[in-house]
Amino acid sequence: MDQPDIEHINAYLLALQETICAALTAADGGAVFHEDLWQRDEGGGGRTRVLRQGRVFEQAGVNFSRVYGGALPASATAHRPELAGRSYQAMGVSLVVHPENPYIPTSHANVRFFIAEKPGAEPIWWFGGGFDLTPFYGFHEDAVHWHRTAQALCQPFGDTVYPRYKRWCDDYFFLKHRNEARGIGGLFFDDLSAPNFNEAFAFCRAVSQGYLDAYLPIVERRKSHPWGERERQFQLYRRGRYVEFNLVWDRGTLFGLQSGGRTESVLMSMPPLARWQYHYDPAHDSPEAALYRDFLPARDWLKE
Amino acid sequence: MDQPDIEHINAYLLALQETICAALTAADGGAVFHEDLWQRDEGGGGRTRVLRQGRVFEQAGVNFSRVYGGALPASATAHRPELAGRSYQAMGVSLVVHPENPYIPTSHANVRFFIAEKPGAEPIWWFGGGFDLTPFYGFHEDAVHWHRTAQALCQPFGDTVYPRYKRWCDDYFFLKHRNEARGIGGLFFDDLSAPNFNEAFAFCRAVSQGYLDAYLPIVERRKSHPWGERERQFQLYRRGRYVEFNLVWDRGTLFGLQSGGRTESVLMSMPPLARWQYHYDPAHDSPEAALYRDFLPARDWLKE
Repeated sequence: MDQPDIEHINAYLLALQETICAALTAADGGAVFHEDLWQRDEGGGGRTRVLRQGRVFEQAGVNFSRVYGGALPASATAHRPELAGRSYQAMGVSLVVHPENPYIPTSHANVRFFIAEKPGAEPIWWFGGGFDLTPFYGFHEDAVHWHRTAQALCQPFGDTVYPRYKRWCDDYFFLKHRNEARGIGGLFFDDLSAPNFNEAFAFCRAVSQGYLDAYLPIVERRKSHPWGERERQFQLYRRGRYVEFNLVWDRGTLFGLQSGGRTESVLMSMPPLARWQYHYDPAHDSPEAALYRDFLPARDWLKE
Repeated sequence: MDQPDIEHINAYLLALQETICAALTAADGGAVFHEDLWQRDEGGGGRTRVLRQGRVFEQAGVNFSRVYGGALPASATAHRPELAGRSYQAMGVSLVVHPENPYIPTSHANVRFFIAEKPGAEPIWWFGGGFDLTPFYGFHEDAVHWHRTAQALCQPFGDTVYPRYKRWCDDYFFLKHRNEARGIGGLFFDDLSAPNFNEAFAFCRAVSQGYLDAYLPIVERRKSHPWGERERQFQLYRRGRYVEFNLVWDRGTLFGLQSGGRTESVLMSMPPLARWQYHYDPAHDSPEAALYRDFLPARDWLKE
């Protein structure tokens, strides 16, 4: 038998939300998370936690949700037609951190579990998740540390895991209408049920822990970097790209909005402030141009 | 014969862009439009004009484009399967005005013409367009003036035109994930080829002229209204909804992004600055609450 232990996952995800909020609160050293418990009319609910106007984080949102539905929405069945018409249960933790200092990158992490069932058939279940980093001003050592941490957590699960999920991340967090990556990537996986429940679940736990190991040292290293209006304006401009990705391309956001998710929790990922400027082009050889030239194009950070 | 005169439409749209830019420049009294001519690899191009940081308008973008393509993208054929596989030509003027003073509403207008052809078949052509108003702080007299102007321009084309296109506008500019209108509506029409080319084209011209008649008096009336940080914050928050609508629901934006349109011109509609705030709720009986209560729910402004 290789049946998923749903209540175990549920308990793990709730504890994960605690762990991450505690770690971010400590890293911020100022603000605390505000919590909302909510229920969804169609079934299920969640626990949303948001920290605003901290010393380090302009906003951080860490959301737990567990929802039930009679039929998976289009965003979930488009690439897996065998799921159409099944009832489902989805649970996960999703978080986005928007630091105030433009030298600290924005980060995002997610772990999720789906199970889709119909009478007389075996349930179909899988895990998905990952984490990715969105710097405004790139630092080579941060990018290498981020990807080394990702590589190290994947290693026990096989040599091919990091390269496969690193590439999937590069492909996924990509703004086709800009021909531009959202950031420097990290890990992205979906449809994971191999080799069995225990190992897939263990991999998810490793990803979650790896996120904190990857992100917190970067926050620590950059949080006292002096910045001014120029950096702030570039940060706000680049946050516009974050908005574009999330609303136009992100399957998780579309799933949330299409499945009657709690909009305020789904859109907790939006930056607190963002700007658009027609036809902005960074000056040649500026630190802003370096982001586009040296950091956004997909590359192998472990070969450096 | 009832063939569309494409070059006549083209010349009209270019002149319309001039007229609108001149009117907005005069209303602003400060900044001027910056112009970019651009070409599209797949065929066609456009003339984008943007005014930034004016005395009245924080940003105004007025875009003309004329593009050709081998096959219509999904966003255009989803509701008209007979168009699939036809080559097309699309031209139009689209504009969005983001005033600085939160007491002046944001406005949007568009006229567009499509023709889809294949060998051995009659061309299929149609007009679309309209205008809609997005106030932050509602004024009853402005809403009535806006809709009276819309009604008056529709009247010569038949009694049913205004109610039909007013309702279509309410239905179209609606954020399903918020269960909330984008603004107070106006007119929206699409697939218009009846009763014949000349009359459909005349209606488009009436809509374009009507936009200026509807909007400029409101700008004039509100541009000296005192405002402060509170109003600015609410304006930025509501602009977040504008972003959500345009990126998640707007067919025109999706068409632009999917058809390899010039992204900078398509996303010229984005506000220069916008914010999101988790779980914001306006205070009971505040002017901000009045927007949600009295202005956003669809209503018949001509019965007032």
